Amino acid sequence: MTRTKLPEKAPSSRRTTLRTHHLGELNLSDIDSHVSLCGWVHRRRDHGGLIFIDLRDRYGITQLVFDPKLDQHSHDLAQLLRSEWNIQVEGRVRARGEGLTNEKLATGQIEVEATKLKILSKSKTPPFSLCDDKIDVNEDLRLTYRYLDIRRGEILERMLTRHKIVKIIRDFFDRRGFCEVETPILTKSTPEGARDYIVPSRVHEGKFYALPQSPQLFKQLLMISGLDRYFQIARCFRDEDLRADRQPEFTQLDIEMSFIDKADIIDMIEDLMIEIFDKILGVQLKKGFRHMPYSEAMEKYGCDKPDLRFGMEFHRVTDIAEKSEFSVFRDQIAAGGIVKAICVKNGAAFSRKDIDDFTTFVNKLGLSGLAWMKMGDEGLSSSIVKFFSEPLQKELIKRLDVEVGDLILFGADSLGVVNQAFDHLRRHIADLQGLKKEGDWKLLWVDDFPLFEKDKESGLPTSVHHPFTSPLKEDFNKLHSDIFNVRSNAYDLVLNGFELGGGSIRIHDSEIQRTIFELLRLTPDDITNRFGFFMEALNYGTPPHGGIAFGIDRIAMLMAGASSIRDVICFPKTQRATDAMMDCPSTISHHQLDELHIRVKESKRG
Amino acid sequence: MTRTKLPEKAPSSRRTTLRTHHLGELNLSDIDSHVSLCGWVHRRRDHGGLIFIDLRDRYGITQLVFDPKLDQHSHDLAQLLRSEWNIQVEGRVRARGEGLTNEKLATGQIEVEATKLKILSKSKTPPFSLCDDKIDVNEDLRLTYRYLDIRRGEILERMLTRHKIVKIIRDFFDRRGFCEVETPILTKSTPEGARDYIVPSRVHEGKFYALPQSPQLFKQLLMISGLDRYFQIARCFRDEDLRADRQPEFTQLDIEMSFIDKADIIDMIEDLMIEIFDKILGVQLKKGFRHMPYSEAMEKYGCDKPDLRFGMEFHRVTDIAEKSEFSVFRDQIAAGGIVKAICVKNGAAFSRKDIDDFTTFVNKLGLSGLAWMKMGDEGLSSSIVKFFSEPLQKELIKRLDVEVGDLILFGADSLGVVNQAFDHLRRHIADLQGLKKEGDWKLLWVDDFPLFEKDKESGLPTSVHHPFTSPLKEDFNKLHSDIFNVRSNAYDLVLNGFELGGGSIRIHDSEIQRTIFELLRLTPDDITNRFGFFMEALNYGTPPHGGIAFGIDRIAMLMAGASSIRDVICFPKTQRATDAMMDCPSTISHHQLDELHIRVKESKRG
Repeated sequence: MTRTKLPEKAPSSRRTTLRTHHLGELNLSDIDSHVSLCGWVHRRRDHGGLIFIDLRDRYGITQLVFDPKLDQHSHDLAQLLRSEWNIQVEGRVRARGEGLTNEKLATGQIEVEATKLKILSKSKTPPFSLCDDKIDVNEDLRLTYRYLDIRRGEILERMLTRHKIVKIIRDFFDRRGFCEVETPILTKSTPEGARDYIVPSRVHEGKFYALPQSPQLFKQLLMISGLDRYFQIARCFRDEDLRADRQPEFTQLDIEMSFIDKADIIDMIEDLMIEIFDKILGVQLKKGFRHMPYSEAMEKYGCDKPDLRFGMEFHRVTDIAEKSEFSVFRDQIAAGGIVKAICVKNGAAFSRKDIDDFTTFVNKLGLSGLAWMKMGDEGLSSSIVKFFSEPLQKELIKRLDVEVGDLILFGADSLGVVNQAFDHLRRHIADLQGLKKEGDWKLLWVDDFPLFEKDKESGLPTSVHHPFTSPLKEDFNKLHSDIFNVRSNAYDLVLNGFELGGGSIRIHDSEIQRTIFELLRLTPDDITNRFGFFMEALNYGTPPHGGIAFGIDRIAMLMAGASSIRDVICFPKTQRATDAMMDCPSTISHHQLDELHIRVKESKRG
Repeated sequence: MTRTKLPEKAPSSRRTTLRTHHLGELNLSDIDSHVSLCGWVHRRRDHGGLIFIDLRDRYGITQLVFDPKLDQHSHDLAQLLRSEWNIQVEGRVRARGEGLTNEKLATGQIEVEATKLKILSKSKTPPFSLCDDKIDVNEDLRLTYRYLDIRRGEILERMLTRHKIVKIIRDFFDRRGFCEVETPILTKSTPEGARDYIVPSRVHEGKFYALPQSPQLFKQLLMISGLDRYFQIARCFRDEDLRADRQPEFTQLDIEMSFIDKADIIDMIEDLMIEIFDKILGVQLKKGFRHMPYSEAMEKYGCDKPDLRFGMEFHRVTDIAEKSEFSVFRDQIAAGGIVKAICVKNGAAFSRKDIDDFTTFVNKLGLSGLAWMKMGDEGLSSSIVKFFSEPLQKELIKRLDVEVGDLILFGADSLGVVNQAFDHLRRHIADLQGLKKEGDWKLLWVDDFPLFEKDKESGLPTSVHHPFTSPLKEDFNKLHSDIFNVRSNAYDLVLNGFELGGGSIRIHDSEIQRTIFELLRLTPDDITNRFGFFMEALNYGTPPHGGIAFGIDRIAMLMAGASSIRDVICFPKTQRATDAMMDCPSTISHHQLDELHIRVKESKRG
């Protein structure tokens, strides 16, 4: 045994009773130290009498050598070791031999001569490999064995990044005098009641709590209480039919301030984003993000969260199409429709087959057809060019800034249908052309949203954001005459086609609040039953206030380079809202149901 | 108008579009600055033409002067102002006149000549005064108008203290390499199922989620996943019959570490407590808190969370009582009971009436009587002294260290009954004698708990903490022979009679875990259905691990000097588990019930 040195290093914060160092720590300065290490067997190699173990923990990998000449017993025991066994070893740090160092590892210059080995716990063979960086495993299996999926490293890294982001956010708001307040999870069913998760009360028979979809009313009450500056990393719940990449519970950065206007929120959030991007990615953003009114976003990109990493804006060409001889366009226009076109740079390279695929793509989105023209050295060509006179062609080329090698795509239908189909098509083509560059971060404020939109079924006004959003002052006078043209004092922050967050200046006058509720067709009884406490609160000197909320899962996903929010949530639900590991939701006992005064309705399918 | 100076100060973080300064900020260095201020009318005084307004916000109070000679319009408008109206003013900062300064206010050297006034929102008369520090208002009314209760200042201060405590905790663990992980709120019904809040699933008919009573299994899974160091400020839920000062939802500091033993947890938590006490209270604690085994705590204080700010330990005097002629004691002993005594220093001053009250007090706790003796200059006196021989009296005096002026109280019954009654009596007398000194902080580790206790009804073993707690290694061999004497590797941290937190080293071996479940009379089916996923996880190289959890509400309460956890929770539930402000829980619509596949059971009382 070679205990040339006692462990004399200052105790590090990772040092514990069972280990002197973690596994990403030892280097040439530790040569001859006697160390105690713990971790998982990552790889094992037998080399003519010597056994090499790559021992792994959260912090790194350290190579162990078991040499029968140094300690026969440990060497014998090491022969039993298998992948993922959890062990503790003691031994001396030594330099690796010439040519045997590993530059990829922080500990690649050294190895540890193990002279004592203790098996802490054995492992069954994992259901998928934990050594390979890229594995092709069914997500359900990964979620069922989430603890092993995390051990693989990638999810673990993302959890650490997420922790770091949230820490930066909390430090940022603490420095600025914000108070984090925990608002209740057991609360009252909200306006959006139909999407509430509810919780039966045992003590109050036949009554229910609801889980919050957001702390909106609580944060407004905190402004009324004089807290001045509130934030919370808040868990929120929404029982939605799970569209792509939604979770029943999600985490929101929730912010509210008093005595402010939109400019104060924007100023502060830009500072926050600049700090997060700098500290997490080392990317320097410039203050003064671009702004775009909702109307412009819809006109040019067909959506309220445009990805600005690439152009391909929509151009309205109804006037040109109307003058053409192309009956498809003329019929649509006659029926009240519009025609929009996009110019795909270098798009002439797309084949006939590609363009047919685009047509199928927009068909699925409700657009019946896609017309196109290619720009060659000889000018425009396609089967419909003949319907456009020379001057009309020139006008088209000018308006869309068409160059040789470009492709023009036309959509003709109602404005809504064209916008939706072209929004998706634009992003689809950008994928094909590789225009969504990684590391290109295009932040955008979208504002001047309409306050109301028409409910698709009833045609009645519903809130675009929520009923507490203030109308723009200059549009107050349209509330009763031109309701769908009233703009709100709301703002969304968009990053590369994702909505990071959104907020608004709130209504702080109970009369205006009542007017909005009435315009939303709430009866006086509805107002009292659902918002009575809040309407009362507004009567006690409510300060002007506003705020914003961000999806933490979404931000973490984008910063960590993950493709789904499930990859930045430690224990996510599946797309069927189940926990694959725990098997939940699950049945509960009759006794429990009895105590809660409820029963399960007999199934009609039963 | 006297705009002698433009606002040229560097923008502070509280500066917004509507204000240049907050109301705790201006002082003599701001003289002649033109400022814009916002806040609530705290007090209004009319002084011969001049109107003085104390304007209040979260940060302080600033005095405004409305002088008709400076601005007639503002002065006229200021006459309308009433308590709690929310206003914005502009004006010039000036020094207060000689003799008119207020040393109690940070801004007491200055006032602001208001030359512009805008009423932001009016206020109804609040249901209770917001100006007086001490008000005697029914708690239900305060909770119904919680936003006004907070505006009074005391609750607001506590929320800020709570924010600060939680910030210190997060910074502490971040520095030590802990990763904060958010574990699910929608999870599976746990072992303690009967106390779970449950949530019906809309998507999975007849199935339910449960809200977590603690993230126990998740944090153990995170250790299996290799996270190494986890913490979380976690919301937990328990549907208990609400005993004094419990809440349906509460906040827990939840911690878990791998490759550690009890000493590592204790070392770290002492560092944490030292830091919190220093930064919040300016109190310097000394590392190396006192330890006491559970058995000693029960023997000397009759409870596992003794308040050590005062003595009054219990002494067992069964042997002395047995030799006396006092039949009450002898009968109890013959029936298997014991006799304990406490010496109340200076207790001879208690009157006969006081001692009768003590008797009534212990009667309510199940102890049938209380015997007593007083120590005077002539020795012991009371109606029962005659039953004790001279040597027995001497023995008593010696064992209890009785001095002149002291009172001895005796309890005779089963050990459990005496312990419980004397625990309460000891604390009650300490209250009367003023022994619970504020600012005296006695921290204590209680350890070596029993692993199991007898269920009161069935006599079968149940876990004292939870079934994942490791037995002490040296007691493994008693698991099958002497189960109620097996000690656990658990530890509680106690402060002045309150349990701040508790934790344990966990079982990391699936065979031992299975044995514990079996000793708890779980069938193999129970184990599979309730813990199958966890038993499986234990099989993949589980590292030795352990942790601890603290009640954040309790810690905040003690540090803020509040007397109830409701005073450190922003929107607490009442003792009937209702939200007085929002009126929740509440009924929900048939449509919602239908969607969730449940119905309310008809009431038997109906």
